Amino acid sequence: MTGYIAELTALLARTPEVLRALLVGLPQAWTDTPDVTDGWRPRDVVGHLITGEETDWMARTRRILEHGTAFPFDRFERFAMLQRDAEVPLDDLVERFAGLRAANLAALAELAADGDLDRRGLHPSLGEVTLRELLSTWAVHDLDHLGQVYAGLAGSHDAEVGPWKAYLGILLRREDLTEVSG
Amino acid sequence: MTGYIAELTALLARTPEVLRALLVGLPQAWTDTPDVTDGWRPRDVVGHLITGEETDWMARTRRILEHGTAFPFDRFERFAMLQRDAEVPLDDLVERFAGLRAANLAALAELAADGDLDRRGLHPSLGEVTLRELLSTWAVHDLDHLGQVYAGLAGSHDAEVGPWKAYLGILLRREDLTEVSG
Repeated sequence: MTGYIAELTALLARTPEVLRALLVGLPQAWTDTPDVTDGWRPRDVVGHLITGEETDWMARTRRILEHGTAFPFDRFERFAMLQRDAEVPLDDLVERFAGLRAANLAALAELAADGDLDRRGLHPSLGEVTLRELLSTWAVHDLDHLGQVYAGLAGSHDAEVGPWKAYLGILLRREDLTEVSG
Repeated sequence: MTGYIAELTALLARTPEVLRALLVGLPQAWTDTPDVTDGWRPRDVVGHLITGEETDWMARTRRILEHGTAFPFDRFERFAMLQRDAEVPLDDLVERFAGLRAANLAALAELAADGDLDRRGLHPSLGEVTLRELLSTWAVHDLDHLGQVYAGLAGSHDAEVGPWKAYLGILLRREDLTEVSG
């Protein structure tokens, strides 16, 4: 398995296992804090990733392959999870995400090959984009939101590190985004 | 298993498995980029975590339990890994870290109990700190540096996301730290 889609899939396939290793069974003392004030708790992030699996990445891949730039993508519902998942335990959300991701990667392997990567679609705000850009964004979007999970976990213990907070960029950035990692 | 040390250990014990799930066997196309210019690649971060296991967290725990504030902690060698680990493959670094972390958590369970959490030590720059603050910092320090790993992974595919970069805070923050997560 070589090529660019395989390279992206190597990362995309890992996210469910990373979330399991990090979050399933973790004491609630760690998991109930958002990344920033009015931000997202880990469960909100996992819910947002679920929305992406259900309505975004593969729907947009199919739109490119079937219609090219003739019809723009539907917009991403960035807050769909807040009501939809309100009663679902975090551990169940992780498993739901894992099932959706596995099904989507299987579908991707069926639908698209590296020869399709330069095919184009139409983003409702960004304009013309390629399948390569869409699939790369799928992977980097995972990384972006995993970073958000870490910020929430760290924030839950902000008060307990005492004076070491001055060295911990992940805590400082929750309040002042110009601080760098210590 | 309840109590504060158990709560911290629940997170600390997960970091090796998270690093394995994320990094072991991941194509090098993802793992050779630092979090920021002149920053750390994932392998440098894992090396830094190894240094912490070897010379910092448990040595400082023992210093508090044996000497209180009579002798300050030794300083943390923040760049020890750059030469020490230059020839070691990333996957081997992850396993070395996993072994050290497991041994240290076993030692911690032997040495310290929640009744020790208010005992004090002397940090060479920060002054008096408690064992509670030291052990909390150990866990949040993991989260801080895991966030750095994600930034490096994302940075490796900065060019491939095209116009979506405008929505991906993890990429924007590598260049401009005032950008927030998209």
